[in-house]
Amino acid sequence: MVPQWVIEKKRDGGRLDDVEIRAFIEGFTAGSIPEYQMSALAMAVFFRGMDTGETAALTEAMRCSGDTLDWAGCPFPTADKHSTGGIGDNLSLMLAPLAATQGVAVPMISGRGLGITGGTLDKLDSIPGYDTRLGTDRFREIVTSVGCSIIGQTARLAPADKKLYALRDVTGTVPSIPLITASIMSKKLAEGAASLVFDVKFGHAAFMKTKAEAERLAESLVRTGKTAGRRCVALLTGMDRPLGRAAGNAVEVAEAVETLRGEGPADKRRLTLALTEEMVALSYPGRPRHEIASALAKALDDGSALRKFREMVEAHGGNARFLDDPTHLPQAGTVLEIPAPAGGFVQDVDADAIGRIVLQLGGGRKAVTDAIDYAVGIDRLVQQGESVEKGQPLMRLLANDAATAEALVRQAAAAVTIGAEKPETVPLVAGRFE
Amino acid sequence: MVPQWVIEKKRDGGRLDDVEIRAFIEGFTAGSIPEYQMSALAMAVFFRGMDTGETAALTEAMRCSGDTLDWAGCPFPTADKHSTGGIGDNLSLMLAPLAATQGVAVPMISGRGLGITGGTLDKLDSIPGYDTRLGTDRFREIVTSVGCSIIGQTARLAPADKKLYALRDVTGTVPSIPLITASIMSKKLAEGAASLVFDVKFGHAAFMKTKAEAERLAESLVRTGKTAGRRCVALLTGMDRPLGRAAGNAVEVAEAVETLRGEGPADKRRLTLALTEEMVALSYPGRPRHEIASALAKALDDGSALRKFREMVEAHGGNARFLDDPTHLPQAGTVLEIPAPAGGFVQDVDADAIGRIVLQLGGGRKAVTDAIDYAVGIDRLVQQGESVEKGQPLMRLLANDAATAEALVRQAAAAVTIGAEKPETVPLVAGRFE
Repeated sequence: MVPQWVIEKKRDGGRLDDVEIRAFIEGFTAGSIPEYQMSALAMAVFFRGMDTGETAALTEAMRCSGDTLDWAGCPFPTADKHSTGGIGDNLSLMLAPLAATQGVAVPMISGRGLGITGGTLDKLDSIPGYDTRLGTDRFREIVTSVGCSIIGQTARLAPADKKLYALRDVTGTVPSIPLITASIMSKKLAEGAASLVFDVKFGHAAFMKTKAEAERLAESLVRTGKTAGRRCVALLTGMDRPLGRAAGNAVEVAEAVETLRGEGPADKRRLTLALTEEMVALSYPGRPRHEIASALAKALDDGSALRKFREMVEAHGGNARFLDDPTHLPQAGTVLEIPAPAGGFVQDVDADAIGRIVLQLGGGRKAVTDAIDYAVGIDRLVQQGESVEKGQPLMRLLANDAATAEALVRQAAAAVTIGAEKPETVPLVAGRFE
Repeated sequence: MVPQWVIEKKRDGGRLDDVEIRAFIEGFTAGSIPEYQMSALAMAVFFRGMDTGETAALTEAMRCSGDTLDWAGCPFPTADKHSTGGIGDNLSLMLAPLAATQGVAVPMISGRGLGITGGTLDKLDSIPGYDTRLGTDRFREIVTSVGCSIIGQTARLAPADKKLYALRDVTGTVPSIPLITASIMSKKLAEGAASLVFDVKFGHAAFMKTKAEAERLAESLVRTGKTAGRRCVALLTGMDRPLGRAAGNAVEVAEAVETLRGEGPADKRRLTLALTEEMVALSYPGRPRHEIASALAKALDDGSALRKFREMVEAHGGNARFLDDPTHLPQAGTVLEIPAPAGGFVQDVDADAIGRIVLQLGGGRKAVTDAIDYAVGIDRLVQQGESVEKGQPLMRLLANDAATAEALVRQAAAAVTIGAEKPETVPLVAGRFE
């Protein structure tokens, strides 16, 4: 295999075969194919694309670059969910224990946040004592005994993806459907779950800006997963407005607990139920959808999902006191209410602006190496369609010092649009792909 | 300047400004911008192109990466020619002294051959004693006193091009009109000649396969040269058949001498006259074309061009005896005639096949580091439209040993097509761009 011939073939619109793709990724991972050839190929893929077979071969080559988990010994069918990321998206925290209440084992390996998008791992790290760095054996034990476990990605899971993603990030080759697909799927396939549900978000605060782009990615993820022998469904969901009323780390854990208690914001509950229903339905194809739906709602309302979450937290060494008293989570030193400048209906809440405020409060990372302040963020955020009186709080800024909070007041007020008419709202789930 | 933003801008079809292009090339040359970002940008340029202003800025940034020659002290107007390369293309050897006979100073910096395409420098190296590695001062002296000098490229001339070309070669980013333009023009502009004539070849043995591609390159070269304040003309010439009757190094020097003597193949004489006429006309815009044309023909026929060539060879330390007796050039040990398998008219001579035979005889380089055998090659080659008798030689293979020559007999015979009808021939010059 001559690397430049493979690059030229793709550049000229040709189809790469499995052998070429595997040799290229193996060479790149081992260092025998230099980064400048990989980045040139990635740019050619950006322009020419890859068909389902090529994308599946790329995914497989990247999956095979590291360890792969096998759940043959687990007594329950395994399923996992992947979200392309959004503001206030803490659904994994509810969905993993909720699915586990229905006999679905959830082996979830999550990532950290970067930029405005938070990461499930950072949220878990705000729980005192919770260990996200368990070894594979303990992970397997918890998934098998409790029914769910969420840990961080190890260096041995799809190392080719780690190397390629770092390169794509600095060479303008991130927004390519086949490359995004292979990046997501190589890790998810290595994780070994039999069923996969994708939450593909679109909107101005999402990675995919338009519904059309999200549809293309959803289709690519589902096809690639099926080619690899997994059961897959994707939901397309909007990300112009934040999910729920909280954005940050500890505050999103607290909101997850509310939701698991059968309370919490309606949009979060609805989307958690929708995604979990897909996981259960894929795992138990014979079970009627309406029966799954009512069992899941019941598990939120009767406390069984919360109990499962408690078991998971304790199995990870976490101190579960915060489940009864949220002040056991990291608390911010300063709380600043943002008053509504006028009365009326909330027309819109700008998710991107909310994400940027959290970032500036110190709740996110501008660079991969940045430290995070788990206590800061936003809570009690108004939602689209709600009516507010002049002076009533639109949100609370949770900061570590008053000066940081004060500096963000104008940005925070500007993130919420108020108008006279009650706005039309769009459905949370805008499409489904299987 | 954030390199990935520049890459993304070009990737999305944007126009790069002069500052971005200069900063990128300076960073790449200095090593602060890594090769993987340069190759990603090059691939984006392959797909998106560059307009004349961008191409000129890229050329200028690459020119400025090294030394630039200045001919302000030269009493004659300066001009040079660049050919995109072909089989039997030794025209520089005739054209430089021929232009010098008309008061045009020719400071020519040439390259080595690679693959089937020969290089003027290798041909000069077959002349005993000729030094192609003179310093800039001696080069300037010879150009000023003799009127022409041909030397090799120094490491200090457009080093960014050297680095970028090596990268493009292994990343599938060679065939891009703006990148080819910047590569050619950065060196030609650094060389400092006021007028530039381009011989843009097209055909199956040329870098540009179609006339349409050659037109695009010709237009890009001329526009970029004009943007840089030079006078420019390009001729489009066919390269499906070899130029002349010889291919190799010493054999092409011998054929150059014949042509400078007013003899030699008609196609070589015609194209040499056409290109030199453009150089003289650009340098002396007031001089009538027909007068230039007859003065040039006279300079070939009366020996003045040959005298100028002799002066140049001697100024470079070369032993000029080969001008009177070609056996003072390197001689091959084995001479093998290839007999015509049938009588008829020569329909075609496959330039690509001739180039590959010379390569296999040892007269060219498969890799940059290969050594060349100056003595080997092909001579007495038939030309399209000529009639041959069965058994009459189609060409002579000049080899260093009989086995190598014998192994190439079938390839050599297959390179010439013979048929019953006299074929139609196409004009040598297929277009002109100014």
